[in-house]
Amino acid sequence: VLPRTYEGENCSIARALEVIGERWTPLILRDAARGTRRFEDFQAKLGIARNILSARLGRLCEEGLMERRRYQERPPRDEYLLTEKGRDLEPVLLGLMRWGDRYAAPDGPPVVLTHDPDGHPVEPVLVCAGCGEPLTPGSVATHPGPGAAGGLSASPGT
Amino acid sequence: VLPRTYEGENCSIARALEVIGERWTPLILRDAARGTRRFEDFQAKLGIARNILSARLGRLCEEGLMERRRYQERPPRDEYLLTEKGRDLEPVLLGLMRWGDRYAAPDGPPVVLTHDPDGHPVEPVLVCAGCGEPLTPGSVATHPGPGAAGGLSASPGT
Repeated sequence: VLPRTYEGENCSIARALEVIGERWTPLILRDAARGTRRFEDFQAKLGIARNILSARLGRLCEEGLMERRRYQERPPRDEYLLTEKGRDLEPVLLGLMRWGDRYAAPDGPPVVLTHDPDGHPVEPVLVCAGCGEPLTPGSVATHPGPGAAGGLSASPGT
Repeated sequence: VLPRTYEGENCSIARALEVIGERWTPLILRDAARGTRRFEDFQAKLGIARNILSARLGRLCEEGLMERRRYQERPPRDEYLLTEKGRDLEPVLLGLMRWGDRYAAPDGPPVVLTHDPDGHPVEPVLVCAGCGEPLTPGSVATHPGPGAAGGLSASPGT
């Protein structure tokens, strides 16, 4: 078990970052979501040291975000596939991409997204499934939840 | 100028992580979004070394995600406020929170969110503003965008 980055934080944001906050991990998940499966292909796309890539993929498998599957026996070859738990990070990656497109892409977005079935441009927006309205920072209040016992990083009502 | 973490990546996800990927920075943004403004309050909530907090707040101000405002002259006291650029990371924080609530909160969510004006529970979902449908990983395709010249981390059509 790795030492925790945010020891003492009883917070789902901190806990998510414990899993995906290591350097390169979000970009491995990005490439996996775009179809990369094989070690050599991740390595070529990311240009990182093999031992780092191996450690990151191993951790993602241990944490259940990816699974390793043998696709060839002789010689043995594995591929790495996103699980549902890994795919569920897609909103985080899209949120980062949208922010980067807006504030850190002086030449325009490096990548654009289209949405099936008709291929219209994607404009991601976070809404409340309950009422359908966009979630804006001023319209959301935080309260202690069922897992709050023993310490809480919320400021109720702010 | 800091050395870049993801040298050579022409990608808005990587560029966003250059700004907010440092340890503690996302939790500073979290607390700021929940109303924390003063150095001493950030320090008390996060329990981190003052020099680290000072460096992180300084970087967030340099990058334009927060601004420092003097609220008292004698003795001089500053507070740190989120700018629009900083508030625009809220979808990323909510996405991390939702993922952590689902996969890393065995006792239930430490924090629950309610949505104004009537205080119903928030269930964040990422939709396409164009068609209103939820964005699922299999329904989005990536293509080179206007900023793609000089290197691209996309896999068109996958």
